[in-house]
Amino acid sequence: MEVMQVLRMNKGDGETSYAKNSTVQSKIISITKPIMEEAILGILWDENHVPESMGIADLGCSSGPNSLAVISEIMDIIYAKCRNLGRPSPEFRVSLNDLPGNDFNSIFESLPDFLKKLEKEKRIGFGPCFVSCVAGSFYNRLFPSKSMHFVHSSSSLHWLSQVPPVLQSNASRVLNKGKIFISKSSPQCVLDAYSMQFQEDFSMFLKSRAQEMVPGGRMVLSFMGRRTIDPTTEESCHHLELLADALMTMVSEGLVEVEKVDSFNVPYYAPCPEELKLEIQKEGSFAVDPLEAFEIDWDGGFDDMNSPFRAVSRGQRVAKTIRAVVESMLEYHFGKNIMDDLFQRYAELVQDHLSKNETKYINLVLSIIRKD
Amino acid sequence: MEVMQVLRMNKGDGETSYAKNSTVQSKIISITKPIMEEAILGILWDENHVPESMGIADLGCSSGPNSLAVISEIMDIIYAKCRNLGRPSPEFRVSLNDLPGNDFNSIFESLPDFLKKLEKEKRIGFGPCFVSCVAGSFYNRLFPSKSMHFVHSSSSLHWLSQVPPVLQSNASRVLNKGKIFISKSSPQCVLDAYSMQFQEDFSMFLKSRAQEMVPGGRMVLSFMGRRTIDPTTEESCHHLELLADALMTMVSEGLVEVEKVDSFNVPYYAPCPEELKLEIQKEGSFAVDPLEAFEIDWDGGFDDMNSPFRAVSRGQRVAKTIRAVVESMLEYHFGKNIMDDLFQRYAELVQDHLSKNETKYINLVLSIIRKD
Repeated sequence: MEVMQVLRMNKGDGETSYAKNSTVQSKIISITKPIMEEAILGILWDENHVPESMGIADLGCSSGPNSLAVISEIMDIIYAKCRNLGRPSPEFRVSLNDLPGNDFNSIFESLPDFLKKLEKEKRIGFGPCFVSCVAGSFYNRLFPSKSMHFVHSSSSLHWLSQVPPVLQSNASRVLNKGKIFISKSSPQCVLDAYSMQFQEDFSMFLKSRAQEMVPGGRMVLSFMGRRTIDPTTEESCHHLELLADALMTMVSEGLVEVEKVDSFNVPYYAPCPEELKLEIQKEGSFAVDPLEAFEIDWDGGFDDMNSPFRAVSRGQRVAKTIRAVVESMLEYHFGKNIMDDLFQRYAELVQDHLSKNETKYINLVLSIIRKD
Repeated sequence: MEVMQVLRMNKGDGETSYAKNSTVQSKIISITKPIMEEAILGILWDENHVPESMGIADLGCSSGPNSLAVISEIMDIIYAKCRNLGRPSPEFRVSLNDLPGNDFNSIFESLPDFLKKLEKEKRIGFGPCFVSCVAGSFYNRLFPSKSMHFVHSSSSLHWLSQVPPVLQSNASRVLNKGKIFISKSSPQCVLDAYSMQFQEDFSMFLKSRAQEMVPGGRMVLSFMGRRTIDPTTEESCHHLELLADALMTMVSEGLVEVEKVDSFNVPYYAPCPEELKLEIQKEGSFAVDPLEAFEIDWDGGFDDMNSPFRAVSRGQRVAKTIRAVVESMLEYHFGKNIMDDLFQRYAELVQDHLSKNETKYINLVLSIIRKD
């Protein structure tokens, strides 16, 4: 399975689309806002530090309302600061990045209205704002040298560039039987393989961004993680453990072959703060500003009383959120036919679990500065 | 009809897609190559004039094989010149632009293989090459200030930003009865309205590019035009005259309402060299290098003996080419249902016309330099 070709948020705006099922990710973006604000104000700290042209990137932009919401928040912060400093905002060079399978067409279709609205709201001293889309893996170079001042990435860096190689071999079926990710029953070599893949990927990420960012430029990265050294902790694994359980109920009923489950592993990793700090230190181009951890409800702490999802169980809301994100990969491996059934079972398992345990995601938010 | 929302080449890679029916446009790109080469060598004329980072844009990139073929040719020229000068090629910042409805997803999907191939072919001293897509009208700003060294546009600038306003009013039904474009029977005010819209648009195009290009930067623009002052000449109108005729046969059979035809006008204009030179002079930022005119067969001088289109009549090949380009607009105005029938009738009218008259398109190629 080539992650580059297979991983993508569900396209369009239908019932199972990412656009309609990204409340958790939207919640994370709002939680991150104060940290993003601090980072941006750290770039524009006085009137001599406002660049004429400012490079801004969102990595793993996906599609749907979140893609442009992030950009809108960044613009708000910069525009307000510039007005405070009594000067016009810089020329904005905004780059939206995701893998080549992302639904960029839908972003492009909503851009004209978005830009019109921005200009209308801001009026004096705003922009111009040039938005472009860049397809490719953020574990490689994406942008020209020293072109970026502020880089943001939310709910993306927990995706690895590949399933750890040892788990892609035939032997893997024996290694991680009945599981699709790190689990309490996984042998140490599975844990190590995931951790090593994350280290390699995160190191490549830092190396690439180091070349693309101007000195003093800042990054705010937020992604699923964990607070403990132990990678088998519920907060980092259990949502995928339950997905494996749902698959195994289908195996027990003869609907899915057990070999299919044994040979599937998710290219995902939820790191702990120590792993992040170690890689940043090893790479050497960035200094860590704050690193914070937030708890997020599996359904994003759903509280929209007007939403059509109000009548839906928490288990179903969680299942919809996860489906919008991982369906492309599961479909590729297991086929399209079992998806409705699988996520119905998953919803029930999640509902049952949450009625007994208040397991939450841990979202890590990392603010780092490109050293001079 | 909002051109920005309605004009797009047919998506995907099916039988009526632009990807499968763009031989004429591909032919035009190859005819333009020597002029493009001359322009690029004019930028990189000695080793002190190779920028570290080179901004390259293709405006109206569409989708399908032509989108990346242009970029490939530009890279070839720059890479060969740099090897001649004994130095590595610059960092490439490539921007592909089209209207927001363009099928950018299909470009993004073919990009990874394209870039891999480029790197493999070129090897030493090539790149890096960063490709981004920008959605928007080229009659407005698209790119940051002074960011572009070479701008190319092929088979796009004959599309206007809008149908001339006078033809969008109710009165237009009386003005251009039974026609969808300038015709021998059109009154002078229709001719003037089209010419004025082109002047306005082309002037906005030049103004926008003047801000985006570095001094000494070059543009190669190629588009449908005419050699004579008279805008009703067959070489610039007759392919659309026959499309109006095809629609009118459907009116006569009660399949299309005559009001529908009377109220439809194509946002297209095929200028003469004098009109172009006048606008360039008025705007003032660019100097004209050569301006050349080429004859192009309506079917692109089809000569691919291995193509599945070999067995197809010239009329049908022309109809397929035109359909891939104008169907989005016609569908919006006349509805999806009549398309097959309409283009079948059109193919027959074209076939009949070409058996009596060797009418060809005139492609104008303009090379201009951003003055210091």
